[in-house]
Amino acid sequence: MKIGFIGLGKMGGKMVERLLNQDHEVVAYNLTQKEIDDVSKKGAIPANSVKDLVDKLEGRKLVWLMVPAGKPVDENIDELLTLLDQGDIIVDGGNSFWKDSIRRGKKLKEKGIYYLDCGTSGGVWGLQNGYCLMYGGEKEPCDFAEPVFKSLAPENGYLRCGEVGSGHMVKMIHNGIEYGMMQAYAEGFEIMKNSPYNVDLEKVSRVWMQGSVVRSWLLELIGNALDGNENLDGIKDYVQDSGEGRWTVEAAMEFNVPAHVITSSLFTRFASRQESSFAMKLLAAMRNQFGGHEIKKD
Amino acid sequence: MKIGFIGLGKMGGKMVERLLNQDHEVVAYNLTQKEIDDVSKKGAIPANSVKDLVDKLEGRKLVWLMVPAGKPVDENIDELLTLLDQGDIIVDGGNSFWKDSIRRGKKLKEKGIYYLDCGTSGGVWGLQNGYCLMYGGEKEPCDFAEPVFKSLAPENGYLRCGEVGSGHMVKMIHNGIEYGMMQAYAEGFEIMKNSPYNVDLEKVSRVWMQGSVVRSWLLELIGNALDGNENLDGIKDYVQDSGEGRWTVEAAMEFNVPAHVITSSLFTRFASRQESSFAMKLLAAMRNQFGGHEIKKD
Amino acid sequence: MKIGFIGLGKMGGKMVERLLNQDHEVVAYNLTQKEIDDVSKKGAIPANSVKDLVDKLEGRKLVWLMVPAGKPVDENIDELLTLLDQGDIIVDGGNSFWKDSIRRGKKLKEKGIYYLDCGTSGGVWGLQNGYCLMYGGEKEPCDFAEPVFKSLAPENGYLRCGEVGSGHMVKMIHNGIEYGMMQAYAEGFEIMKNSPYNVDLEKVSRVWMQGSVVRSWLLELIGNALDGNENLDGIKDYVQDSGEGRWTVEAAMEFNVPAHVITSSLFTRFASRQESSFAMKLLAAMRNQFGGHEIKKD
Amino acid sequence: MKIGFIGLGKMGGKMVERLLNQDHEVVAYNLTQKEIDDVSKKGAIPANSVKDLVDKLEGRKLVWLMVPAGKPVDENIDELLTLLDQGDIIVDGGNSFWKDSIRRGKKLKEKGIYYLDCGTSGGVWGLQNGYCLMYGGEKEPCDFAEPVFKSLAPENGYLRCGEVGSGHMVKMIHNGIEYGMMQAYAEGFEIMKNSPYNVDLEKVSRVWMQGSVVRSWLLELIGNALDGNENLDGIKDYVQDSGEGRWTVEAAMEFNVPAHVITSSLFTRFASRQESSFAMKLLAAMRNQFGGHEIKKD
Repeated sequence: MKIGFIGLGKMGGKMVERLLNQDHEVVAYNLTQKEIDDVSKKGAIPANSVKDLVDKLEGRKLVWLMVPAGKPVDENIDELLTLLDQGDIIVDGGNSFWKDSIRRGKKLKEKGIYYLDCGTSGGVWGLQNGYCLMYGGEKEPCDFAEPVFKSLAPENGYLRCGEVGSGHMVKMIHNGIEYGMMQAYAEGFEIMKNSPYNVDLEKVSRVWMQGSVVRSWLLELIGNALDGNENLDGIKDYVQDSGEGRWTVEAAMEFNVPAHVITSSLFTRFASRQESSFAMKLLAAMRNQFGGHEIKKD
Repeated sequence: MKIGFIGLGKMGGKMVERLLNQDHEVVAYNLTQKEIDDVSKKGAIPANSVKDLVDKLEGRKLVWLMVPAGKPVDENIDELLTLLDQGDIIVDGGNSFWKDSIRRGKKLKEKGIYYLDCGTSGGVWGLQNGYCLMYGGEKEPCDFAEPVFKSLAPENGYLRCGEVGSGHMVKMIHNGIEYGMMQAYAEGFEIMKNSPYNVDLEKVSRVWMQGSVVRSWLLELIGNALDGNENLDGIKDYVQDSGEGRWTVEAAMEFNVPAHVITSSLFTRFASRQESSFAMKLLAAMRNQFGGHEIKKD
Repeated sequence: MKIGFIGLGKMGGKMVERLLNQDHEVVAYNLTQKEIDDVSKKGAIPANSVKDLVDKLEGRKLVWLMVPAGKPVDENIDELLTLLDQGDIIVDGGNSFWKDSIRRGKKLKEKGIYYLDCGTSGGVWGLQNGYCLMYGGEKEPCDFAEPVFKSLAPENGYLRCGEVGSGHMVKMIHNGIEYGMMQAYAEGFEIMKNSPYNVDLEKVSRVWMQGSVVRSWLLELIGNALDGNENLDGIKDYVQDSGEGRWTVEAAMEFNVPAHVITSSLFTRFASRQESSFAMKLLAAMRNQFGGHEIKKD
Repeated sequence: MKIGFIGLGKMGGKMVERLLNQDHEVVAYNLTQKEIDDVSKKGAIPANSVKDLVDKLEGRKLVWLMVPAGKPVDENIDELLTLLDQGDIIVDGGNSFWKDSIRRGKKLKEKGIYYLDCGTSGGVWGLQNGYCLMYGGEKEPCDFAEPVFKSLAPENGYLRCGEVGSGHMVKMIHNGIEYGMMQAYAEGFEIMKNSPYNVDLEKVSRVWMQGSVVRSWLLELIGNALDGNENLDGIKDYVQDSGEGRWTVEAAMEFNVPAHVITSSLFTRFASRQESSFAMKLLAAMRNQFGGHEIKKD
């Protein structure tokens, strides 16, 4: 199949490579030239603009967006709107907010263009293992795009979740769960680390992979991270969040679901990024006020 | 190798079976006869008492305990103390509290008997997949017992974690992590369930197994649980805890580790078992007092 | 001072009464007649429509809205927009979302009308004790309205917090804190309730009011609630939330502040309202899958 | 009444002063001399040893201990055991663990000596406002000691909670609630601090004292802490915990009570004291492993 691909970053570049490996034709465009050259060397057809990319497609067109969530998605859609024809398909494979996807789907639908929202998991390992894909949108264009999904995913690794928005919603929840799982491991490993036993944490992570209840891919990665660096020296205890954790908490509130674990996992990340906590200063000040407890000087 | 095995319950019976399959000789004892008969049919040598079991072993004796944590372990140890000789080995494969294991190790050491504390994970699937084993104790008796560990575990599935107590401590933390992971999945699936999309949760759990960041054995089990029963009809929202979650929280406090996720996961289980919450009644009463907010009648 | 007052519910009716007691003239309107009649008997001037209410005011007009958050506020504002003149003032004394207040303030500003957003605390006790008022808006109209704020509040009980939106934001956070405090008490009292001692909880709440660190008005209300009903019989463990807790969690996320306590307090309320928890069903199903643990039938 | 008082620290010294102000005779002892001299100047009878203290009492003796929890309490009790007579009374006014109090009560009971466990709240303000006292023990010795309790407490500020242990249990829960309340305020104030409005936090704390739902003594102290130092400059975000929070969490687990808020409040204190979090390092390492997300260098 011949498709257009906009956005050749950390994720997008490898996805194009995987598509090329599976005999698709890919017209590729990126804001900066270097990434276009890289995939061209691997067989992609370079485009020098969105318009050029669309011009180089034929028949019913399929354009995959792999750009940062938010404004870049809207801007690309706005440009594509002027270039695509009725029945053409845009797939947003990034981490867009699911309600934005609903809005975009409606807007494109009015012009007769299909919008598919596709959550993509697999990270830097996707080229090799395949990307787990969960997408939403009308059934007919999803079927049309299936050869692409099939090639990107491992066997049985793609799913149409429902109407537009459902793909990014499922992906958002996937990431919320990811936050909670990561935090569960992190807490457990820190308790072991602080215990009186000098446990070899890497070996523990490796043995737990063999038949234990907590075996998982994340645990395998923990083993890799600890391999040769059991104290995680040189790594700052500073953890970003990408937005999907927050959206999951918002969804939990919207749907009246208690989500203690996912939310706590988000908050520990906030705390990791604070140079100083006003809340904790206030606690120290209160304790001093009522009990004369000593305050540490800042 | 010839070993004694006390406790043929849900876990113990299958472990004996796995040992027999791998050409060990097992002298087996249980408080009730039926389980002894069952494993005898599979090749175990039946014992009609702890004494009989010890009598039927030769040379340096190894006795594996697979009995409920607490009193049953102490009672068996007390009896074995009168029957075993210097250098013999007791393995406690159950979910004992790690500080109890330290205490027991010291007590047995005084009599020249070795105590190995072995955390065992794998549940009902262990017979087929092998049991993940994490154990503590002196190196020499651990080496002596290694053929047994090796046969029970999958390949690379056993680890000496350190001195006595370390095995059960590592297993305790394993279970604490398990609580957190389970809760992370549960929250995420409930949010999906309550979303406006009628997402097929089983299919989501299956697709996430293919290349996604959250793939794990627990997720596979979620797929099995949802298979043919997506609403989990007939299952009460009532969740037990086995003690190890609580001990993990205690350890977190002892070692000054924030453990929001593991602790919240424990507390949601407490809440699931409450017929009525006094705390929530008190909240309703307070809201009525200050704001005239309506109280639901009980 | 002569002011218009729209919304004579649980809060509004008593606020009008307090204003009348302090020699203000109040033109009062409500969607249903009974509440108008009630305040008229106490000295208010009845209005039979928003237009009638505005007509009965003179000079620079001040209209206080005390209607449910959301659509009712917007509808009243839209009607008032057609009736008020440049320089007139609308005070929104309800629990509006602070970002709505910013939006409304901008919209009214374009027409030369001032919008003051005023958070009002004090509940059913405000008539007697005064209402704690925290409001936002330009300084000049706030000064103009000060006699009204002063009469409604106890001594020193009103504060201009900043520009439009700040009043409702401060009130929102006030309520978030309220959630956390209530939950802290509720957890503590439930632990006492479940302890082996048959502690008289009402007496404890009373003694803590005398010199202890945890004395507060909420604690006084707990004493009242427990008075003669220590088991809170007849009160269902079902707790509503009014929206401000959720907004506080959203604000915490927007401003990158860890808010474990306020968020947990919100989630326990969600749980209190669930007839059955899918998350907990899923946990029970997982435990059954991996450990053969018994499931309670629903 | 004439009583003995051991322990003249931050709390004890002022308690002796309050007793002297109310015409009790106090024989006072402390490990270091300076504190004995200080209270002697205010009218206390100095003792140069525990034995000397007991010798200077007459008739039925009452000795109040105000020493650090743990070993100091046991050591004093052991010494007093050799000096006191049947029917004499020891009051432990410190923050002892309630199960230790049960143990001590039993031990002393065997010798015919009464042990009363008394939780004392009020901090540095107790001299002026009175100490809130919650105590446990047999009714008869509690009645005998009542004049002392009455003088230390504000009006209606003392309560016999039940049998031995109940006093310290109620005090422990008091402190657990205190943790939760403090954290609720701290989170709320930090959200305000990080908001786009430049809200005067001290003024907010002051206005909330007037008629709002969240008014409390702690809030008054917040106002004092922020007075003249709104950014809490010079105060490190480092918060100790005294043990009672941990015990409350343990009690919650023992009595199967979900205690999300109190526990989170404890964990944020743990986090405030960590120079670096292994858990957060591990999260950063995992994110790097699966998504190639950048790691901040330590």
